[in-house]
Amino acid sequence: MNNDTIVALATPSGSGAIAVIRLSGKEAISIASQFFKSVSNKDLKKQATHTIHLGHIIEENKTLDEVLVSVFKNPNSYTGEDVVEISCHGSPYIQQEIIQLFLRNGCRMATAGEFTLRAFLNGKLDLSQAEAVADLISSDNEASHQIAMQQMRGGFSSEIAKLREELLNFASLIELELDFAEEDVEFADRTQFKELIERIHFVLKRLIDSFAVGNVIKNGIPVAIVGEPNVGKSTLLNALLNEDRAIVSEIAGTTRDTIEDEISIGGIGFRFIDTAGIRETNDVVESIGIKKTFEKIEQSQVTIYLFDALKNINNLEDVRIEIEKIRNKYSQKPLLVIANKIDQLDDVQLASINTTIADVLLLSAKTGFGVEQLTTSLLNLINTGALKNNETIITNTRHYDALLKAFEEIQKVKYGLETGLSGDLLAIDIRQALYHFGEITGEITNDDLLGNIFANFCIGK
Amino acid sequence: MNNDTIVALATPSGSGAIAVIRLSGKEAISIASQFFKSVSNKDLKKQATHTIHLGHIIEENKTLDEVLVSVFKNPNSYTGEDVVEISCHGSPYIQQEIIQLFLRNGCRMATAGEFTLRAFLNGKLDLSQAEAVADLISSDNEASHQIAMQQMRGGFSSEIAKLREELLNFASLIELELDFAEEDVEFADRTQFKELIERIHFVLKRLIDSFAVGNVIKNGIPVAIVGEPNVGKSTLLNALLNEDRAIVSEIAGTTRDTIEDEISIGGIGFRFIDTAGIRETNDVVESIGIKKTFEKIEQSQVTIYLFDALKNINNLEDVRIEIEKIRNKYSQKPLLVIANKIDQLDDVQLASINTTIADVLLLSAKTGFGVEQLTTSLLNLINTGALKNNETIITNTRHYDALLKAFEEIQKVKYGLETGLSGDLLAIDIRQALYHFGEITGEITNDDLLGNIFANFCIGK
Repeated sequence: MNNDTIVALATPSGSGAIAVIRLSGKEAISIASQFFKSVSNKDLKKQATHTIHLGHIIEENKTLDEVLVSVFKNPNSYTGEDVVEISCHGSPYIQQEIIQLFLRNGCRMATAGEFTLRAFLNGKLDLSQAEAVADLISSDNEASHQIAMQQMRGGFSSEIAKLREELLNFASLIELELDFAEEDVEFADRTQFKELIERIHFVLKRLIDSFAVGNVIKNGIPVAIVGEPNVGKSTLLNALLNEDRAIVSEIAGTTRDTIEDEISIGGIGFRFIDTAGIRETNDVVESIGIKKTFEKIEQSQVTIYLFDALKNINNLEDVRIEIEKIRNKYSQKPLLVIANKIDQLDDVQLASINTTIADVLLLSAKTGFGVEQLTTSLLNLINTGALKNNETIITNTRHYDALLKAFEEIQKVKYGLETGLSGDLLAIDIRQALYHFGEITGEITNDDLLGNIFANFCIGK
Repeated sequence: MNNDTIVALATPSGSGAIAVIRLSGKEAISIASQFFKSVSNKDLKKQATHTIHLGHIIEENKTLDEVLVSVFKNPNSYTGEDVVEISCHGSPYIQQEIIQLFLRNGCRMATAGEFTLRAFLNGKLDLSQAEAVADLISSDNEASHQIAMQQMRGGFSSEIAKLREELLNFASLIELELDFAEEDVEFADRTQFKELIERIHFVLKRLIDSFAVGNVIKNGIPVAIVGEPNVGKSTLLNALLNEDRAIVSEIAGTTRDTIEDEISIGGIGFRFIDTAGIRETNDVVESIGIKKTFEKIEQSQVTIYLFDALKNINNLEDVRIEIEKIRNKYSQKPLLVIANKIDQLDDVQLASINTTIADVLLLSAKTGFGVEQLTTSLLNLINTGALKNNETIITNTRHYDALLKAFEEIQKVKYGLETGLSGDLLAIDIRQALYHFGEITGEITNDDLLGNIFANFCIGK
């Protein structure tokens, strides 16, 4: 294992009040101490772990910056190695000068995710916890954040690790039986073993099933908004936004662009997909416009059909026919029909909408009327039972694949036990299942796998 | 003075490995401790200053993040108040959730520069040092960085403060004389006083003169590149770039856009100004194209005239005439004439360029030939004597104005001393000079001034 000293910027790039540069490795403290002059003349190498020191980064009598240096001593650090964090002024120029200084003096630029990789290799985190770190950083709503947090705290992998250990015990006993094959002994209690396999079967099934929920939560639930141009889509998005993100958007740094694409409702991310106008080419069903709209609906989990109630008040029948077309084509997909701009209609007109179009939601994006009902409808469409009960949810494709493979092996073991399969054949299936469990937590791993996982991290993590 | 507890994100907004949220004020530690659960069950309120603690931010049993909390105790902190820095995972969602948590529980969002304002009000920094903090963060080359660093460390304001104190002593003595006016005593030694005024006069003059240099260093030296389209301007900028910034641009986050506009050569920022093609409307001197080019030259301190040596090899005389036009119109401004693409010419052609056009620099942006000579020429044009001698340089317009006003008053005092002005009139001028000195260091200040200064800071600083 490589334990040379690595350095990287740990905070987002750009200008800010402060930036943090992180060093980790055997020489981290001694390299930092060469260029750090404490205001109270303290020797960095003699300081206790988890202490902070004010001073200057000085290179050949040139002061680069006034900084705070935090010292973390092996093994009590993020990576498990000696770690130094330098909190400097947040100028990109200063950040680069300090990093360059360390690169010239024995440090190497950290690769993507290398700090977390070292934490994994030093046993500070298992592999699924390490993966959760990246998920945590990219989480942008309450649900995905909670799932990543739970995974990082080991909720999911500790369950797998515990089952793996129990299975490993039985595997050893069964393999022991093989050594005494001629004597026909049974070290492994078959009833207990069956019970364990049932338990594992149940847990794996639950985790695998949770992936469907986990996946939409992690990536946001895709919602296609279908309707003519100028039907009020942007106003609707803004209305949804004001309803749920008003407080958040008071903080600087909340970018409008992101919000317009993805909105968090009740802690669940909804990803709104832009659609081409569906009605422009009303009569030519096969036209490009319609085709694109259908494509978008296919990519989405939920479709919102939005129409201008004011403009269409005299041809509601056409609207109804069009909605039926979509409903028939995508009978498996939830469809929410919304009549917008109802603030400009009278009661008679509203009644005619209700009678012509089934299950229509009357809404005014402008006044906000009906927006709350829409958010409730959206949330009701999503089965978040698992989430509410704080159950473990799988969001990672790699885990999902390993669980599926483990599940397959466990089914073979289960079948083998039921049909009285011989111990040597049982052992092979059990070993395979153990292998896939190990892939999740990182007991079984290889450089390619680690490379793939940590390449998705940012540099500095 | 307000000492409620303020909170803000201190690191740049966006995604990164970590982010730092800063709290400052009387309740900073107690508010943070309400939501921080240390892994070793330590009470945050009982921890020593400059210590770091691992734990979780928890709101009503919901874990927001695993964090490191740094504790700084009044007066040993940046602001001089109790300060808590929370180093959390760098997800914008988590940053906002944690900030929102504190906003709901007794903290107030910090205004721009409020941490540094508090540092000033608590006497941790004088006003010019506080201003240097903002300069330091925005510095993007070695020269501006060194000036800001020097100012932040008090080099400039301590000199002013010392002179102010000496002057204050004399002012008191002279005012004391006024109380004994009938007795015709002289408490203030006029010879020593004259000597002090001479000294102040000299220092002020030097500081005021340094502003011209400081201003171009802070903002970059504007250089107009004049020439036809496709003459090789971009290639030249890239060549200059490779010469000087190659190492820096290996680091992620170095944005190409910025570099193309401003290039640091030998630690000095050069700001290249885009120009309209000068030759397109060759015969109509008053045409818009030419006018724009002249405007650009007027905005610049240095002009580079770049021409395509290959294309113009048979009409060098036209090129010469055009260069003369510019040289005559802007005889006060340095002009560098560059023949580009010389890698495609033979020795005879090169000789004809040298004989036709005076002081021409032969260059090939493509091969890099001549680029080093160009950077040397650019640096030689700028008088950086003051910079090299590590003298104090003024870059701040507010300081410049105050110094000019103080200088005016000191001149009056000087003249008064020479002409034997009465003590009471002298005292008025001295008081005025003292006032302007105080404006620089912040002894004399008011809310409007502070508001203006700190509004230019980022939030979190």
